[in-house]
Amino acid sequence: MKNQNRPSKELVADRQSLMRTFIRPENTAARDTLVKYMEQILFGLHDFLNTHVGITEEVSLKDLSERYTDTHIRENPENKLAGVITDLIEEIAPHAVNVASPYFIGHMTSAIPFFMVHLKTIVAALNQNVVKLETSKVVSVIEKQVLAKIHRVIYRKNNSFYDEHVQNTQTSLGCFTENGTLANLTALWVARNTQLGPKEGFEGVDKEGIHAAYVAHDIERSVVLVSKLGHFSLKKAGGILGIGNSNIISIEPDLTSRIDLKSLKEKISEIKKSPVRTKIIAIVGIAGTTETGTVDPLRQIGEICAENRIHFHVDAAWGGPVLLSEKYNHLLDGIGLADSVTIDGHKQFYMPMTSGMVYFKDPCMMDSIIYHANYVNRLGSVDLGIKSLSGSREANSLILDSALKIMGSRGYALLIEHGIETAKSFAEEIESRPDFELVTPPELNILTYRICPEAFKKELGKCREDRRRQLNEKLNDINMSVQRLQREAGKSFVSRTTLKSYKGRCENIVVMRCVIMNPLTEINILRDILDEQEEIYRHEFGSG
Amino acid sequence: MKNQNRPSKELVADRQSLMRTFIRPENTAARDTLVKYMEQILFGLHDFLNTHVGITEEVSLKDLSERYTDTHIRENPENKLAGVITDLIEEIAPHAVNVASPYFIGHMTSAIPFFMVHLKTIVAALNQNVVKLETSKVVSVIEKQVLAKIHRVIYRKNNSFYDEHVQNTQTSLGCFTENGTLANLTALWVARNTQLGPKEGFEGVDKEGIHAAYVAHDIERSVVLVSKLGHFSLKKAGGILGIGNSNIISIEPDLTSRIDLKSLKEKISEIKKSPVRTKIIAIVGIAGTTETGTVDPLRQIGEICAENRIHFHVDAAWGGPVLLSEKYNHLLDGIGLADSVTIDGHKQFYMPMTSGMVYFKDPCMMDSIIYHANYVNRLGSVDLGIKSLSGSREANSLILDSALKIMGSRGYALLIEHGIETAKSFAEEIESRPDFELVTPPELNILTYRICPEAFKKELGKCREDRRRQLNEKLNDINMSVQRLQREAGKSFVSRTTLKSYKGRCENIVVMRCVIMNPLTEINILRDILDEQEEIYRHEFGSG
Repeated sequence: MKNQNRPSKELVADRQSLMRTFIRPENTAARDTLVKYMEQILFGLHDFLNTHVGITEEVSLKDLSERYTDTHIRENPENKLAGVITDLIEEIAPHAVNVASPYFIGHMTSAIPFFMVHLKTIVAALNQNVVKLETSKVVSVIEKQVLAKIHRVIYRKNNSFYDEHVQNTQTSLGCFTENGTLANLTALWVARNTQLGPKEGFEGVDKEGIHAAYVAHDIERSVVLVSKLGHFSLKKAGGILGIGNSNIISIEPDLTSRIDLKSLKEKISEIKKSPVRTKIIAIVGIAGTTETGTVDPLRQIGEICAENRIHFHVDAAWGGPVLLSEKYNHLLDGIGLADSVTIDGHKQFYMPMTSGMVYFKDPCMMDSIIYHANYVNRLGSVDLGIKSLSGSREANSLILDSALKIMGSRGYALLIEHGIETAKSFAEEIESRPDFELVTPPELNILTYRICPEAFKKELGKCREDRRRQLNEKLNDINMSVQRLQREAGKSFVSRTTLKSYKGRCENIVVMRCVIMNPLTEINILRDILDEQEEIYRHEFGSG
Repeated sequence: MKNQNRPSKELVADRQSLMRTFIRPENTAARDTLVKYMEQILFGLHDFLNTHVGITEEVSLKDLSERYTDTHIRENPENKLAGVITDLIEEIAPHAVNVASPYFIGHMTSAIPFFMVHLKTIVAALNQNVVKLETSKVVSVIEKQVLAKIHRVIYRKNNSFYDEHVQNTQTSLGCFTENGTLANLTALWVARNTQLGPKEGFEGVDKEGIHAAYVAHDIERSVVLVSKLGHFSLKKAGGILGIGNSNIISIEPDLTSRIDLKSLKEKISEIKKSPVRTKIIAIVGIAGTTETGTVDPLRQIGEICAENRIHFHVDAAWGGPVLLSEKYNHLLDGIGLADSVTIDGHKQFYMPMTSGMVYFKDPCMMDSIIYHANYVNRLGSVDLGIKSLSGSREANSLILDSALKIMGSRGYALLIEHGIETAKSFAEEIESRPDFELVTPPELNILTYRICPEAFKKELGKCREDRRRQLNEKLNDINMSVQRLQREAGKSFVSRTTLKSYKGRCENIVVMRCVIMNPLTEINILRDILDEQEEIYRHEFGSG
């Protein structure tokens, strides 16, 4: 796009200036310039956003996209680093999304502590590739240590267990991935390989494929069971792994948005009795559903899995770090029964985009996904890439390790507790306002609600089904409009989703969804957000 | 581990100091401190490494791992940011691997230009999640633009094609992934879904799974064909996708380490005639094999694929950016025939760890991997997460976009050309030394060689098979020892691998492997490395 940050004289690519970008500058002036750029990045960006924008500038996507249509790469440089940084701050950032604003409560992306940016910078400057020891050395060793630290938080095994495994080159307590989707995929990959493992005359599903596995194991189908509120990455994993995404079977949630145990048990016995010979590869419990933040009854699901010898996976991408709060870790009771657990780093560990992790109770379970090659890793080494979806990986484990040292578990607990408790106050605020309805109360720090003026509430309480559907459709339109107008105004952002059932009835209900994770999001800010929605509603729909 | 960078007084986690880490500091002193840390990261790290270490410090892995066995997370902070940074620079970095050293020529990880660290820092500070517009906005639009720019370099379609697709919300020219493994997996996922697509009474392999797909398509097996020198991520992808990794079939390379076209054609007709009904899902051509850097005959493979209606994937993770050099882009002739192409960002685009990309000739091909969910993305939107393996993704596209502006295509070409030409000179140097043997000459900037003293060379030239094997085994031992001793000495690093065939004979040959990508790696440095190897060899094996 056009702008004033272009260099005045023509730039030419030449070897000498190129080499300079690879050499640590020796003179003070050159160093000062590079440091000044960092200052601009650290503060210029935030200053600019604070002065000029709330969440994002009001420009239509159509207008924006028309500015980025040139598909030619110039032969010579278009700009210098200084110009590029200024462009990014003044031209790009205002049209990106200010996820650090305390008024941005719509998604699981939020402000991160300042020091995280420093830590990410170190990781970039070191540029280690942790899939192999030869490009990481001590960093691989530290990664094993931090994996053991988090494993301990989940599984609370004894000292001798951790002494045995923390630096054991033969075993793995888990691995870092790039995000929760890849962590869930890794967990289900391991579960599939374990459940359809080698047997006489069959070398395992990973080697021979799904078709041969079904023949060897005498089945026609394999399935995964999860609450309807499960993350869509699970269906995606089903598609990728060759199980088929229609075999990721949804179980109805109960009235509290947790998986209905009766329905789960019924489904299991229905599958067992089915003429189509079916293997249940895994049952997934959710610790913090994406839409409602609720936690499935993990202990009971764990017991059901143990009874039926089914792999128990817990998707704690969101809720995992709640374990660091002594006040609230009971909410995840039973997570230690899980065979595998997903936790995201860039969510409630407040790490920069992107970092995920997956943990395994049995330190040998990841053996079912061993792949190696002479040129990168050797069996029996610390090469972490031997049991890993990814073939190159940056050292995000250093960020988590450092953050745990800087914050302590108590620091994380304070953030988690602020979120849970602010969400509770927010729920009370919503319930106290006649034009709003709290749809799913917060268990962790996520809640949903909708605009539902008193007249609607009264009628909904007593009308018949067809009328109810009519009213809810009208409310859906209202909530969609208000959410969109608020987003477009750019001062605050609440997301919306469509719940598939409400009060035990199958019905599409459009709701506002809030995720309270920014410690600067206090109740007064949440009141402002509700005020703005009320105002939009009254202005648009004329109700007073 | 123990060290002197611990704070002297006890730290306590409290809400107030925690909040400060989320708030942009208002006073100059606090800002100056944060900038000073960045200075320390930018220069302290490099200064320290330059003064104290070559590639890595000489500490055994066993000793190292014994220092990282504590698996408890402290309740209160252990250290402040300043202490953590100092630890990382003084305690961790020396035991990590200095991949930026021009003497580190063993892997595809190397020095990156200084500005890349700044760009990564901006990406971290913005903390956008590009899977959805609501957490990225303009950044998603820019990602589409940079994808189109690279697509154009590969496929050279006309202006109207790019005008139509650059910002088209319905089509995708490719996507960013975290690394080449995930790019290859995405490409084969798309290929599998396309080749085993929906037909009457069947809703496609992604929905119904491999087993149902084979029944519907009346096959018993599906396979992927690739040269024996293919990256191990392809076998891994075969395992994950339910095809079975034994169905990723290796084709012998010819004497120049390129796929043997005759063997490829024979394998295709063998499969067609096989009583086991088999579908060839894809043939993979390699543009820069990991071990030897050679490029398969892409045009001819493309023609074979077109003839047989097989998906043609090119793994150009390494070689892709060679397309930016007008002098050498002919080496990748025929790449435009590929249905899909993998290119890594953290390899020859000199981006920080980690970034990969996959491109598709047909802008609708990625429709076969559409997944969406109400709460994150909506069909028909620019939400990039709809066709993506990952569920969260950082904005690495901003780094590539900025780097292309700062360097120009000519800047990248200069780096590429330096690598190719230095590798050629290095090959000549190796051939001129009596104690060395060039095993695979460089086509791009990778070569392999081994220590092979003249006496061995002479005898190998005329002896019988059993003696030849004996001699080669002895040479393998010598090369393993020398490579290890050089690595342990810590001044330089050359990797080693085992080639499975040499001079048309199946035999395990241990070779030294060099990747010349650091522009500071000049021929004199390479001579130093050979000198050191000669010295180690003479010292250890007493030969003069």
